[in-house]
Amino acid sequence: MKFNENVAKEYLDIQTFICDEIEKVDKSSVFSREVWQSELGEGRTCTFSGSIIEKAAVNFSKVKGELTTGAAKALGVSPDSFFATGISIVMHPKNPWSPIIHMNVRYFELGNGGYWFGGGIDLTPHYIIDEYASKFHKALFDLCENYKVGFYEKTKNEADDYFFLTHRGETRGIGGIFFDRIGPDNEQEKLELFEFTKKLAKAFPGIYAEQLEALSGKEYSDKNLEWQNLRRGRYVEFNLVFDRGTKFGLETGGRTESILVSMPPVATWVYQHNVDKDSLEYETLSKLKKGVNWL
Amino acid sequence: MKFNENVAKEYLDIQTFICDEIEKVDKSSVFSREVWQSELGEGRTCTFSGSIIEKAAVNFSKVKGELTTGAAKALGVSPDSFFATGISIVMHPKNPWSPIIHMNVRYFELGNGGYWFGGGIDLTPHYIIDEYASKFHKALFDLCENYKVGFYEKTKNEADDYFFLTHRGETRGIGGIFFDRIGPDNEQEKLELFEFTKKLAKAFPGIYAEQLEALSGKEYSDKNLEWQNLRRGRYVEFNLVFDRGTKFGLETGGRTESILVSMPPVATWVYQHNVDKDSLEYETLSKLKKGVNWL
Repeated sequence: MKFNENVAKEYLDIQTFICDEIEKVDKSSVFSREVWQSELGEGRTCTFSGSIIEKAAVNFSKVKGELTTGAAKALGVSPDSFFATGISIVMHPKNPWSPIIHMNVRYFELGNGGYWFGGGIDLTPHYIIDEYASKFHKALFDLCENYKVGFYEKTKNEADDYFFLTHRGETRGIGGIFFDRIGPDNEQEKLELFEFTKKLAKAFPGIYAEQLEALSGKEYSDKNLEWQNLRRGRYVEFNLVFDRGTKFGLETGGRTESILVSMPPVATWVYQHNVDKDSLEYETLSKLKKGVNWL
Repeated sequence: MKFNENVAKEYLDIQTFICDEIEKVDKSSVFSREVWQSELGEGRTCTFSGSIIEKAAVNFSKVKGELTTGAAKALGVSPDSFFATGISIVMHPKNPWSPIIHMNVRYFELGNGGYWFGGGIDLTPHYIIDEYASKFHKALFDLCENYKVGFYEKTKNEADDYFFLTHRGETRGIGGIFFDRIGPDNEQEKLELFEFTKKLAKAFPGIYAEQLEALSGKEYSDKNLEWQNLRRGRYVEFNLVFDRGTKFGLETGGRTESILVSMPPVATWVYQHNVDKDSLEYETLSKLKKGVNWL
């Protein structure tokens, strides 16, 4: 089997694993697992709506085609044929004390022989709770350092820069790790990187379960729900204005429903919304900065 | 007074006129009129929340500065200083049978002496009702033809192309008129074009009042409200992915709250939402096409 087909096959298996594991965390529902085919390729979009996780999607896709001028420009490469496969996840919890989570691993090849892996995981708490922010980053630190010393620091900083809403001067949440365009020439390093993306994806359900098990039973008020919907509005802004996967997908004529399944179930906008200086909402906003050491 | 300062002054007066007129249409509230200043310039953001119009904003701004590389690229010009002034309006009605409306007129100057006017108005009904779609386009036809024969057809077609969600294969609504980068060398033509933008802006309250007076009293169900929120989700998609004013504003470091005040109060997303073939929702979707003759 060609390397790229093998990556796709293994990612598909991991998608199954992730869905199975998440069904053990929120037993109120099961994933709807929908296989699709399009002009560009194929995929499986698994969606979930339960009592703990309000709206979740675990996407797998394997597509190929010709880059449009816009997509090639966005990637900084010459127009060429491409192959891309990956898993992409967004989960919006019902309880405002629980965080939104996103994870993505992807492999990309150009017709000219160029290739790279990319990926990331980041957490967007509606309310930042230091203890659980720390647990999240600790899990990533262990994963990264196990792969390569210094990889956490490098990709944590990249996440701070990437998951940032320039027009709001806010990070999306507490970040996580982000890496893109890593394409080692050395065959061994390439395989190790592939292994790392698999480990990251397989670690996802446990990492999110730790957050949900601690926080999804916490009581909440209407005010907490209002805040959640405002923060979901920011999530929409990030995904439509900045998210590279979303932009690349829409630009290359990807399957819109699978791309925009990352949108929250509902989002609100209030002109010049203000929060009290001694509120938890204010505290969360004050922590949406780059360069915070969450460990 | 310099021409550009005069344009700004007259636009500011028209903003006042528009707010006053809208307050006569929805008497349940008044505009909050907020003057602001930023590094780039100044403006007035007038916001409204009433029982007929749920969320509205009438923006005026007058800004100048240096184009960022991104903004210059987006405009297709070399990096230069710029001056921009305009009125920008979005109104989200409470009643799902009433349409969302948008109107914008703007004047732009470059340091190298280049200048142009742009503008547009378009209607986004949650439910398309042919009679009122036609009234809207008839009003624009009269305005345009009074200015210049053939201007309606030209700008109506541009609106069809501009107010289009490529990834959805849908127009945003029933369109309207759109024009950009018209900068006549001839002084008389320049003044006539300025007059046209003023007439368009002044016609706005009457055009929207005609829709609201007919439709805002119509009874609606929870199902109608759900549909309205889904359509508002599409509005969000257009504004964040395609709207040139939003992109230019965010790119040049404009005042975020004034730019994103166009967002609906609430929006929802449902993965693969389906509508029955013989429903009004289906009928509306089937009409979201380019090239429809609404007259």
